[in-house]
Amino acid sequence: MEFTGADILSIEQFQRSDIERVFSVADAMEPYALRKRVTRVLEGAILGNMFFEPSTRTRVSFGCAFNLLGGEVRETTGFQSSAIAKGESLYDTARVLSGYSDVICMRHPQEGSVAEFAAASRVPVINGGDGSNEHPTQALLDLYTIRKEMEGRGRTMDGLRIAMIGDLKYGRTVHSLCRLLTLFDNVHVTLVSPPELAMPNYLVDRLRSVGHDVVISDDLAHGIGHVDIAYATRIQEERFHSKEEADTYRGRFRLNQAIYTQYCEPNTVIMHPLPRDSREDANELDNDLNQNPNLAIFRQADNGILVRMALFALVLDVVDQVDKHARDVNWYSGR
Amino acid sequence: MEFTGADILSIEQFQRSDIERVFSVADAMEPYALRKRVTRVLEGAILGNMFFEPSTRTRVSFGCAFNLLGGEVRETTGFQSSAIAKGESLYDTARVLSGYSDVICMRHPQEGSVAEFAAASRVPVINGGDGSNEHPTQALLDLYTIRKEMEGRGRTMDGLRIAMIGDLKYGRTVHSLCRLLTLFDNVHVTLVSPPELAMPNYLVDRLRSVGHDVVISDDLAHGIGHVDIAYATRIQEERFHSKEEADTYRGRFRLNQAIYTQYCEPNTVIMHPLPRDSREDANELDNDLNQNPNLAIFRQADNGILVRMALFALVLDVVDQVDKHARDVNWYSGR
Amino acid sequence: MEFTGADILSIEQFQRSDIERVFSVADAMEPYALRKRVTRVLEGAILGNMFFEPSTRTRVSFGCAFNLLGGEVRETTGFQSSAIAKGESLYDTARVLSGYSDVICMRHPQEGSVAEFAAASRVPVINGGDGSNEHPTQALLDLYTIRKEMEGRGRTMDGLRIAMIGDLKYGRTVHSLCRLLTLFDNVHVTLVSPPELAMPNYLVDRLRSVGHDVVISDDLAHGIGHVDIAYATRIQEERFHSKEEADTYRGRFRLNQAIYTQYCEPNTVIMHPLPRDSREDANELDNDLNQNPNLAIFRQADNGILVRMALFALVLDVVDQVDKHARDVNWYSGR
Repeated sequence: MEFTGADILSIEQFQRSDIERVFSVADAMEPYALRKRVTRVLEGAILGNMFFEPSTRTRVSFGCAFNLLGGEVRETTGFQSSAIAKGESLYDTARVLSGYSDVICMRHPQEGSVAEFAAASRVPVINGGDGSNEHPTQALLDLYTIRKEMEGRGRTMDGLRIAMIGDLKYGRTVHSLCRLLTLFDNVHVTLVSPPELAMPNYLVDRLRSVGHDVVISDDLAHGIGHVDIAYATRIQEERFHSKEEADTYRGRFRLNQAIYTQYCEPNTVIMHPLPRDSREDANELDNDLNQNPNLAIFRQADNGILVRMALFALVLDVVDQVDKHARDVNWYSGR
Repeated sequence: MEFTGADILSIEQFQRSDIERVFSVADAMEPYALRKRVTRVLEGAILGNMFFEPSTRTRVSFGCAFNLLGGEVRETTGFQSSAIAKGESLYDTARVLSGYSDVICMRHPQEGSVAEFAAASRVPVINGGDGSNEHPTQALLDLYTIRKEMEGRGRTMDGLRIAMIGDLKYGRTVHSLCRLLTLFDNVHVTLVSPPELAMPNYLVDRLRSVGHDVVISDDLAHGIGHVDIAYATRIQEERFHSKEEADTYRGRFRLNQAIYTQYCEPNTVIMHPLPRDSREDANELDNDLNQNPNLAIFRQADNGILVRMALFALVLDVVDQVDKHARDVNWYSGR
Repeated sequence: MEFTGADILSIEQFQRSDIERVFSVADAMEPYALRKRVTRVLEGAILGNMFFEPSTRTRVSFGCAFNLLGGEVRETTGFQSSAIAKGESLYDTARVLSGYSDVICMRHPQEGSVAEFAAASRVPVINGGDGSNEHPTQALLDLYTIRKEMEGRGRTMDGLRIAMIGDLKYGRTVHSLCRLLTLFDNVHVTLVSPPELAMPNYLVDRLRSVGHDVVISDDLAHGIGHVDIAYATRIQEERFHSKEEADTYRGRFRLNQAIYTQYCEPNTVIMHPLPRDSREDANELDNDLNQNPNLAIFRQADNGILVRMALFALVLDVVDQVDKHARDVNWYSGR
């Protein structure tokens, strides 16, 4: 894949070598994200951070990643005030907004909208989530986290054993993860969900078509018994027909320290796409896991910065210049 | 007109020589807007981008223009959260906010509000639209576009033939354009609208008072027959008493490629203040015009950046320093 | 108090020497805030300006203060779109967001929320207001203003005579000010309010416990007769059970130029936390005071920038570097 000037719309664009390229650039971003070093490589560049559906976390993560490379961010949040509400086509919006910045991140509630926007844009577009369709940077940061956690245990992605838990029907992140896992060898996947929220068949078939071992279960204890990664998901109310239907499933699979100790292998990594629902009736991952060093959920969020910095650097073709525009941080940095 | 430190509130401030000054600075901004060059001339300066009425496009355009000169942008959107909602006077708001930035852009739903604000502000204020009153930067970018398109055809503003089409009663942009056209010689204006949405008489009189030729019509085909510029407008629901009333007029004058081919001279330029309403019942400018090289609507939007950069540079008196703080762009720039 | 890396959560953290440290740094920020000089000391640093309760003024003031030091600002306003609304704990929000920036300012409607957030944050947190609890930077800018106005009259904080007027029951700013005044010697405090909106007893006791003279009154004319500072407050509708209850008190104590001339000593300074409610039924401070040079309300707002710059510089430990990264302003600066 040629990264320079490319749109990042779907994980289907990525071959294994592309992913390795992204991850190796992400590794190199760490001193900047940890505020040991400052780089100004994108000083003067502008990110158009266009969130037509609100999302504090993803929006701020993209913005900070761009700032960490030295660039500026202009942004919009929400829908009602935008020209789209006055009947403007995505084509027009794209033609106009792409005259204002060097690269655009876009989130939009409608499936396929970001690709439609990108086709008309004159600058590269990164998909920040288009409805239930794709959220490629989340998928990449998940995979990056798995790779990093495995490396810390002297392992590689090949031979990985992973359990995905919860809403596997509507969960966009686990769908993307399944697709990415087909790029690796000999992966063992356990899918733990209520039967009504099972992983779609076409994704199970796809995992099996590359020779992966797939086990389907609705028993949490059994599912998390022999895995390297336990990936829990949130019941996303907004994807169900009603709050009542969502409530039927909320809190069905709860992982806490006692269950972890009883059933998991000692070094099993716990992941979650966040936000974790900590209300009593949900509590997918109990707070008593916060002290468990294998809880990787906040490292995931941190890795999101690295992956997004890497994508910006690749798409804008400044990877080789990052260090040249760098110096040490001159302020207090506690991290 | 002395630009340094001036408020830009109304197009009535501008003489022909002032406009030529703005446009010549705008021309000089092109390498920066096209991301060939980067300038840091306003590094450390702050724009207060105060949008008390939301507008993604205008807000982001102002913000990007300031970023392109190297400055920072702090902004607000909407009303309800602001001190104004707690009974603060515009005077107080201006006194406070003008302590936070070097220049302010302000949009506000109330006619005259921006001038009132500017009177109390300690820094220059640029009007980003005050209700149905003024939106001077839109008027300037329209005129700049006309001049540029004419120049590309070996013509000047004098002797221009222009049709304005649609809602000429409520359309703020066409009102402003009429006023600006009085600064030039021998302009031929065709006004195409339903009689109920006709251009106000005082503006027709004003055009005629400087010797311009004005034709009034409600026939699109006739109106666009012999003009250099066909300027279409949007039916702005929000300016009518009811959606129903607006609907009466929506879609009354539709321009598409077939009509263009049949009635227009070969090089007639199509303009529109945007957003263009592309919903089926409106469709003022059909999408089949998108391939027509004379469709200038996106060049208008791009020109908005140039004109706003020029105004910032003039008001903050850095025109002569822009190039001194410049270097080549060091990232991928596809445009 | 050790400022480097500290959270700024409550004025209770400050000893008199700490306050003097903040104020002396604030003094040094003046050339930058007045746009005589530019400093880039925090170039590359990121402020996370997290306003989970909207506030244009405070949010923009924090953001500008950070920009004035050369740093970048990423921000959020409002609540509904945030992960918190999906059941995320403040702990999780803090762990995630603190990976995105070098320092965080946070406003949140819930008492104690900012401290809870700070406990989980990996970067320093500054309280931008947590419900009716604390708003320490407002308290510091009030005190800084008093000190500066007194100095201009050849006086010090010790021996100060101050009247606080209006809603002393719910007014967060006057509560904080009372606490700060206990750090100084021999202060005379007059508390003017309707009996139902009196200053809480524990604060009166606290003032008296350090030997301050406290007079309680419901007579404006008497209260403002012999003071250096008349500090008026706003009836904050949002703190009352109903608008009707708030209306009972609105406009009870109105200060205008005639009353000032009749009752105040010639140089009495008028302060107010802003926004001042200028609607006819409130009008706490009449607009005819705007020409009175002793009206210090806009100097308060300006001082807010200085105090916030000082806190950023102290917490991020760059006080000694500010001037080293400085140069003269190269654009028009009317102030």
